[in-house]
Amino acid sequence: MSRIVYLNGDYMPEEEAKVSIFDRGFVMGDAVYEVTSVLGGKILEFEGHMARLERSLSELQMVCPLSREDWLAIHHELVTRNELVDGMIYLQVSRGNAGDRDFHFPPAGTPPTVVLYTQSKPGLADDPKAKVGIKVISIPDLRWHRRDIKTVQLLYPSMAKMAAEAAGKHDAWFVEDGFVTEGSSNNVYIVKGSKIITRQLSHDILHGITRASLLKYAAEAQMEIEERPFTIAEAQAADEAFFTSASAFVMPVVEVDGAAVGTGKPGPVATRLREIYLEESLKRTV
Amino acid sequence: MSRIVYLNGDYMPEEEAKVSIFDRGFVMGDAVYEVTSVLGGKILEFEGHMARLERSLSELQMVCPLSREDWLAIHHELVTRNELVDGMIYLQVSRGNAGDRDFHFPPAGTPPTVVLYTQSKPGLADDPKAKVGIKVISIPDLRWHRRDIKTVQLLYPSMAKMAAEAAGKHDAWFVEDGFVTEGSSNNVYIVKGSKIITRQLSHDILHGITRASLLKYAAEAQMEIEERPFTIAEAQAADEAFFTSASAFVMPVVEVDGAAVGTGKPGPVATRLREIYLEESLKRTV
Repeated sequence: MSRIVYLNGDYMPEEEAKVSIFDRGFVMGDAVYEVTSVLGGKILEFEGHMARLERSLSELQMVCPLSREDWLAIHHELVTRNELVDGMIYLQVSRGNAGDRDFHFPPAGTPPTVVLYTQSKPGLADDPKAKVGIKVISIPDLRWHRRDIKTVQLLYPSMAKMAAEAAGKHDAWFVEDGFVTEGSSNNVYIVKGSKIITRQLSHDILHGITRASLLKYAAEAQMEIEERPFTIAEAQAADEAFFTSASAFVMPVVEVDGAAVGTGKPGPVATRLREIYLEESLKRTV
Repeated sequence: MSRIVYLNGDYMPEEEAKVSIFDRGFVMGDAVYEVTSVLGGKILEFEGHMARLERSLSELQMVCPLSREDWLAIHHELVTRNELVDGMIYLQVSRGNAGDRDFHFPPAGTPPTVVLYTQSKPGLADDPKAKVGIKVISIPDLRWHRRDIKTVQLLYPSMAKMAAEAAGKHDAWFVEDGFVTEGSSNNVYIVKGSKIITRQLSHDILHGITRASLLKYAAEAQMEIEERPFTIAEAQAADEAFFTSASAFVMPVVEVDGAAVGTGKPGPVATRLREIYLEESLKRTV
């Protein structure tokens, strides 16, 4: 079944949804995005994703083109029109089409390009990988240095996922100056003794919405959290490892660069955090 | 007058040229490009740009979709259809549309998206700025670390040009680890005594086609060339500075971060190199 997608105010079949060859998103990577999960037809973490979208746009001197109410209405309309039960809603805002290619930003008032569409993933919260954990390789972090802005400049993360696949693994962790920054599309954590260790927020990593909620829920559950960079060697010697992302929630990582982490199976902390995260998030759907 | 552009085998009015919202160039910055100059209806540096295009694609595991003969025929057809005298031809190849957004590369055989269009710039070789020189600011180099691959991930260079404009200057030079890498869309040089100094090729900078030809012509003219990184302080203390790019050719730089370079006017070396470059390039047009 062809999806109905949203493009610049209109709903249309996905095959008809096209943007100009001069769109800044196509010629300059000048666009930001968000991905929001849907479970049972309800949207998770909506306010968090909208707050981050507004921040990404603001950091790039772009005006947020719609109110949160309007964004929510579009999300709901796409869920309804596509009968989405479990999956994601992808949202992208580019700086629009100035009628030609130019490094200079288009004149103020140039309409941004706004695209939203659904991706159906039945059983999204029951991914069998969460039961066995995933394996990762490390790879140098060659991305630009404003990873806190969620731009569509995703070629290197895409190359990292392909490198992981070529190595027979599931994902890649980026390493810079000897320390792990984050996964190719997720925030990463290790557990050592009673401590959950994850890199502190900065321009070096994405400010994960799932990360923020998880740390809050973990603190409420009296878990100890240390925000600092860690190395691959530390991860290999940890009791557990895991990552968080909007669509994978909390995912155990059981191997890093060929070395088993802990028992080589999902540990109790990651398993419990996944339960807590899903429980708490499902209470807050819209 | 509406341009006639090329998109995936067809010539069409620019307003009709659109790509899918799932195009990898739009959602992942997964596309490469070239810009070739046209003077008097003839194309400069064609073979150099095609060789770099093939290299960019190869580095990203993309197949070059057309032969050099086919690329040249399209370039000529666009010049003719748009009656282009002086200006540029922009060429972009993205990894195409896999029908949905995914970090994984689309299946082999997915057609790339191929776009070419003209940009008319009457008097391109007579830019009055070449007579007075341009002024630049420095800015930290926050780009990804494969700048030798000419991808469309140009948001930061675009931000750099806006920062220069906000400072009342023409362009920005990127600085990394204390040394200048390159300009926002050009290779940079200083002249000290009898030496032309420019950063050596690596993954840190674009392998400029104009740069390669200029260094060849300079060597033929018995000029001394030193390929090594230099600092902003060295540039400020140099006798001359300039940049090269496909559409500006050789452009004198007369101020760096508020300090006049040399006399604060275009120097004899940059001026002579601009003449040599244009003379030699115009002998080799196609």
